[in-house]
Amino acid sequence: MAKSVLTPQSEDFPRWYADVVAKAGLAENGAARGTMIIKPWGYAIWERIQAELDARIKATGHDNVSFPLFIPYSFLQREAQHVEGFSPELAVVTHAGGEELAEPLVVRPTSETVIGDAMSRWVQGHRDLPLLLNQWANVVRWELRPRLFLRTTEFLWQEGHTAHATFDEAQAETLLILHHVYDDVIRNVMGIPSLLGRKTDQERFAGADSTYTLEALMRDGKALQLGTSHNLGQNFAKAFGITYSDADGGQQHAWTTSWGVSARLVGGLIMAHGDDRGLRLPPALAPVQVVVLAVKDEAIAACERLVGELTHAGVRTRLDGRTSQSFGRRAVEWELKGVPVRLEVGPRDLEAGSLTLVRRDRDRKETIPLEGAAAASADLLDAIQSGLLAEAEARRSAATTDVDTAAAVEGAGFFRLPWDRLGTGGEADLAERGYTVRCLVREDGAVPAPQENDGLIAYVARAY
Amino acid sequence: MAKSVLTPQSEDFPRWYADVVAKAGLAENGAARGTMIIKPWGYAIWERIQAELDARIKATGHDNVSFPLFIPYSFLQREAQHVEGFSPELAVVTHAGGEELAEPLVVRPTSETVIGDAMSRWVQGHRDLPLLLNQWANVVRWELRPRLFLRTTEFLWQEGHTAHATFDEAQAETLLILHHVYDDVIRNVMGIPSLLGRKTDQERFAGADSTYTLEALMRDGKALQLGTSHNLGQNFAKAFGITYSDADGGQQHAWTTSWGVSARLVGGLIMAHGDDRGLRLPPALAPVQVVVLAVKDEAIAACERLVGELTHAGVRTRLDGRTSQSFGRRAVEWELKGVPVRLEVGPRDLEAGSLTLVRRDRDRKETIPLEGAAAASADLLDAIQSGLLAEAEARRSAATTDVDTAAAVEGAGFFRLPWDRLGTGGEADLAERGYTVRCLVREDGAVPAPQENDGLIAYVARAY
Repeated sequence: MAKSVLTPQSEDFPRWYADVVAKAGLAENGAARGTMIIKPWGYAIWERIQAELDARIKATGHDNVSFPLFIPYSFLQREAQHVEGFSPELAVVTHAGGEELAEPLVVRPTSETVIGDAMSRWVQGHRDLPLLLNQWANVVRWELRPRLFLRTTEFLWQEGHTAHATFDEAQAETLLILHHVYDDVIRNVMGIPSLLGRKTDQERFAGADSTYTLEALMRDGKALQLGTSHNLGQNFAKAFGITYSDADGGQQHAWTTSWGVSARLVGGLIMAHGDDRGLRLPPALAPVQVVVLAVKDEAIAACERLVGELTHAGVRTRLDGRTSQSFGRRAVEWELKGVPVRLEVGPRDLEAGSLTLVRRDRDRKETIPLEGAAAASADLLDAIQSGLLAEAEARRSAATTDVDTAAAVEGAGFFRLPWDRLGTGGEADLAERGYTVRCLVREDGAVPAPQENDGLIAYVARAY
Repeated sequence: MAKSVLTPQSEDFPRWYADVVAKAGLAENGAARGTMIIKPWGYAIWERIQAELDARIKATGHDNVSFPLFIPYSFLQREAQHVEGFSPELAVVTHAGGEELAEPLVVRPTSETVIGDAMSRWVQGHRDLPLLLNQWANVVRWELRPRLFLRTTEFLWQEGHTAHATFDEAQAETLLILHHVYDDVIRNVMGIPSLLGRKTDQERFAGADSTYTLEALMRDGKALQLGTSHNLGQNFAKAFGITYSDADGGQQHAWTTSWGVSARLVGGLIMAHGDDRGLRLPPALAPVQVVVLAVKDEAIAACERLVGELTHAGVRTRLDGRTSQSFGRRAVEWELKGVPVRLEVGPRDLEAGSLTLVRRDRDRKETIPLEGAAAASADLLDAIQSGLLAEAEARRSAATTDVDTAAAVEGAGFFRLPWDRLGTGGEADLAERGYTVRCLVREDGAVPAPQENDGLIAYVARAY
């Protein structure tokens, strides 16, 4: 076995993360401060996440659209909390086409304002509702402490924006996205268990009535917010004049929502599953599920047959026939990249009618017959998928502690305590010590209603 | 038949275009000058174009990546022709995070410079070549006379960037993309015949050694450039230090290419096929190939069965069951949107065991038996596809004139004349009269080599 090329997680987790991002070929810093170059393997992972999300966004009736990158500054000012929340992070275009602009343009930090403006034109009668939109876009929020995938000045995301006739419909939409789009992909495809809950007023999106969130535990015991879904109430509808005539001919303000997840999900994937040897990709998400390595040229024909059988069985397969390069180095490369199953075929294997199968989730090697190897690898994928989720769930269980007071919150993992007891005062005290309330949930684990506050559990953690 | 809701093409083609874009729900102007909102139907068409291009880009070995939106101004200055070409069109971020930036950031007009900088790090030995990258991105070029889809300040596109060990490989890549990615999609999916040729020095991309182009005729007799593929020679390799050690250990500059098509293709599609009733979408591209309209509620069950059969046969189908709205209005809506086949089912049809089939390419209605209607519609799609291409080819043939002198160029359509005779002087004279040399081709229609000039044919036209 080759020596690991990464800093061990136990030694220095942030450095391990930076090592994986670099050595698995995921991303690197861009030239402009805080920006990011997503490299082929990192982008392939993001494309798979996008495809899974996009299919569910469309299946739930949403249409993709594209709104402009540039927003007149005056638009942002129309919703008071919104402009207050985003002002410190804005990038501003002041010159264009060789001249100074009469009104500066903001590079969108999010699109509630431009989309709200369009909705005010597109929504006239109750038949125009619900209006269900989504866009895949880049947004810019100036970051003083950037970190690849997790927090960058420019980032790639999807942002959904919807308008509804009633509060109840807007609330149902907010939770539909949380459960049946985001959690479905994050849990069942990415293999990451999340806590689903409501944010406290302190942590709510600037302009929202209530913000729902998915919070996951990383392997260093810190929490990462993976996505949010906001019930915006009538705040943006009032600021932008999104009104409709109801069945009785009266004018009503619509109720709107917005929701987003970003390429930060790639960072979450790395930190939820990765180990000292690199990434570990859940098969349902992996751009390559099985890689077939030819040790020497003599094995290439046999490897091609395997690749054919696997591809025919619907497995995303890659042939590594770079026999002029060191075999050990190539094996380490696929290990770093987290491909779930590796089949290694050498000339001696061929003589023996066998090959070596390596499961990335366990780094366990075994010799299996060449005959039937494709079917055997394909069969493993489901087990690896559920194994990674189970492992992450067990890790989170072990790292979740019930406490009675804020003072007892100390160290890594999630702390559960009664929200009634903690309150906004306790929340502020925790913040001084670097802890935040990640979300509020009901005692039975369900997400609370927008105004519900009694008997809730607060999940507290250090977070990215 | 309902009266057309569009300005007729023959009366005012630009106004017809604006009418279609608005009434088919394709796009509208954004709030910031020159920007654009792509609406659901316009975006669905763009997504279909993207999917077809992306599959071919990947099949030819390219990896998708994501480079930053912001480029340090100093990067652009490194390639002299490049900065000269783009300077007048740049949008510049001078303030961010509440402060004035030490170095202004340019919003990318294209990414040769940032990608060239990365290539200088990523390319070390000859084994790193070819390096084949692509990104789907938004770019910004300040436009004084914006026009939806055709020319907007921000636009969506893909830009490919590759590095190679030799000139020949770079040239082969440039033409591979032109023929087997761009022309394959534009001709065989979008049904648009293009002239493939080389640009004159005057029309070449800023920083390229040679630019190849696809030029199509719109229904008003003007040309539209649909895409370009550039052999950049060693210009960017020298400006950014993209070098590799060859097999003998010597240091060599790489040879690079870049190539792009944008959402302008949607504009080309509208103007190449659209008629006085709206869009006409080629079935291979159409987001909805067959729409099934229930005239009244009683017909909905029968329509659902048809939709099921069509979907099962792999046809992209939509049910229009909005029976509370006017049937005529709904029929006009699908006509405007250009859906290739419309099936209309009313209660009387059901009694007679029949339905009405409308082919959008001919606006011909016929009554056919309900039994077997799904198969009959599916069978029509290929004929509609090839019919639209044949129609566009015939139109172009009829609108192409051989002339001997620049003075004979007058009016709509393409004019063919010997490039030897026209020359750069004749090109300049034509420019004063509003005509440009769209491309140079060989007498037999093949694309010329980079330095080839003898015996070429110049295609001249007015253009968008």
